[in-house]
Amino acid sequence: MAAMPHLERLTAALQRLPGVGARSAARMAYHLLQHDRAGAVELAQALLAAADHVRHCTLCHTLCEDEVCATCADPTRDPALLCVVETPGDQAALERTGTYRGRYFVLMGRLRPLDGIGPEAIGLQALLQRLQAEPPVRELIVATSFTADGEATAHVITQLARAAGVTVTRLARGVPVGSELEFVDLSTIAHALADRRPG
Amino acid sequence: MAAMPHLERLTAALQRLPGVGARSAARMAYHLLQHDRAGAVELAQALLAAADHVRHCTLCHTLCEDEVCATCADPTRDPALLCVVETPGDQAALERTGTYRGRYFVLMGRLRPLDGIGPEAIGLQALLQRLQAEPPVRELIVATSFTADGEATAHVITQLARAAGVTVTRLARGVPVGSELEFVDLSTIAHALADRRPG
Ligand SMILES: [Zn+2]
Ligand SMILES: [Zn+2]
Repeated sequence: MAAMPHLERLTAALQRLPGVGARSAARMAYHLLQHDRAGAVELAQALLAAADHVRHCTLCHTLCEDEVCATCADPTRDPALLCVVETPGDQAALERTGTYRGRYFVLMGRLRPLDGIGPEAIGLQALLQRLQAEPPVRELIVATSFTADGEATAHVITQLARAAGVTVTRLARGVPVGSELEFVDLSTIAHALADRRPG
Repeated sequence: MAAMPHLERLTAALQRLPGVGARSAARMAYHLLQHDRAGAVELAQALLAAADHVRHCTLCHTLCEDEVCATCADPTRDPALLCVVETPGDQAALERTGTYRGRYFVLMGRLRPLDGIGPEAIGLQALLQRLQAEPPVRELIVATSFTADGEATAHVITQLARAAGVTVTRLARGVPVGSELEFVDLSTIAHALADRRPG
C-alpha cells in the first residue's frame, strides 16, 4: 500500500481511546473514511467542543459544563455527607441507584504507585482541603474500587480523613472483589451503599 | 447529573464508530476528558486531516492520499489480473500475504438488498467500466466475503464479468465460511489465493 500519513495518523490517534487496539483502530478508520465521512467530521467537532466546554466542578471535581455541577448546586443534597469516587463514571453509577442524597468528591483515578501515580496526581490534596473547609463534613463514604490499588487508595483516604476528624465509612463488600464500580449492577451498588461499614 | 450537552454530543458521536455502544462511548469520553485532553484534540485533528486528504484511487477505488494508489502506479503489477474485494481492509489482508502481483478493484462493501444497498451503491457500475476499459483484464479474481451477502455479490459480479468476456475465478474455500476476510490468518488466505477456482 502507498504511504498514507493521514490514515496512519488517524489510526494512531484512535488507539488513544481505551480498549481500542491496532486492528480495531484500522477498522474504525476504514469505516469512517469509506462509509461515514460526515461521522468523522461530527466526531472531530464533538471532540473539540467537549475539550473546550467540559471542565471540572470547582467543588467536587466531577466533569461539568458550568462553574459548579448540578449535584453541588442542589440545595436538597446533604453537604455533611461526602462520597469519594475514582471517576465520573463511578459517580454516575452511584447516582443511578437513586438512593444517595449527599455530595461527591471525584478523584482522578486511584493511586498506582508502580506507575508513578501518587496522592497529588489523583487529587487527595484537594480532598483534604474540602474536608477542612466549610460546610463541615460529618461522614466521608469511601467508594473507591475493590481492587488492590482501590483498597490502597481507600486506606490512604481513611488516614487522611481521620486526621481531619471526619468519620469514615466504606461501601459494603457487596461489590464483587476485583471489579470496577461502573460495571456493577444497580441493586448490588444500592446494597453496598446501605451496608457501608466503618473505615 | 447536570445537563451536559457537549458530553452527550461526544458520547453520541463516538457511537458512530463500529463496535462502540453507549457504555464504551461514555467510558471513552470520560477517559479523554479526564486523562487525555491532548488525545482528544489530536484525534479531532487527525479525523479532520484524514477526511480532507484521504480519497479514493481513481483507478481501483481504494483509500488513497494521491490521485492514484501505489499498487495501481506500480509498473511491475500485472494489469491483466484484477482482484475485486469489498473493503480496503480486505485488500490490505491480501497484500500482507505477499503472494499476489496483480491489481485490485475495491468495492464499497457488499450487496445488502434488505438494507437497500444495491449494485450502484457498492460500485459495480465502475467495476464494469474498468473491465471494459484498457488495458484489458484477462482474469477477474472475486474475493468478496464468504457470507450470504458476499456470495450473492460474487454471483452478480460473475454474471457481469462473463458478459464482458472476462474469465472469472473465486478465492478457494479455504477461507472459513461466515467469516470476514480481514480477520483470517495469512496462510489460509495465501492457500485460498493459490487454489482459486473458476467462478
Ligand atoms: Zn460538583
Ligand atoms: Zn489504485
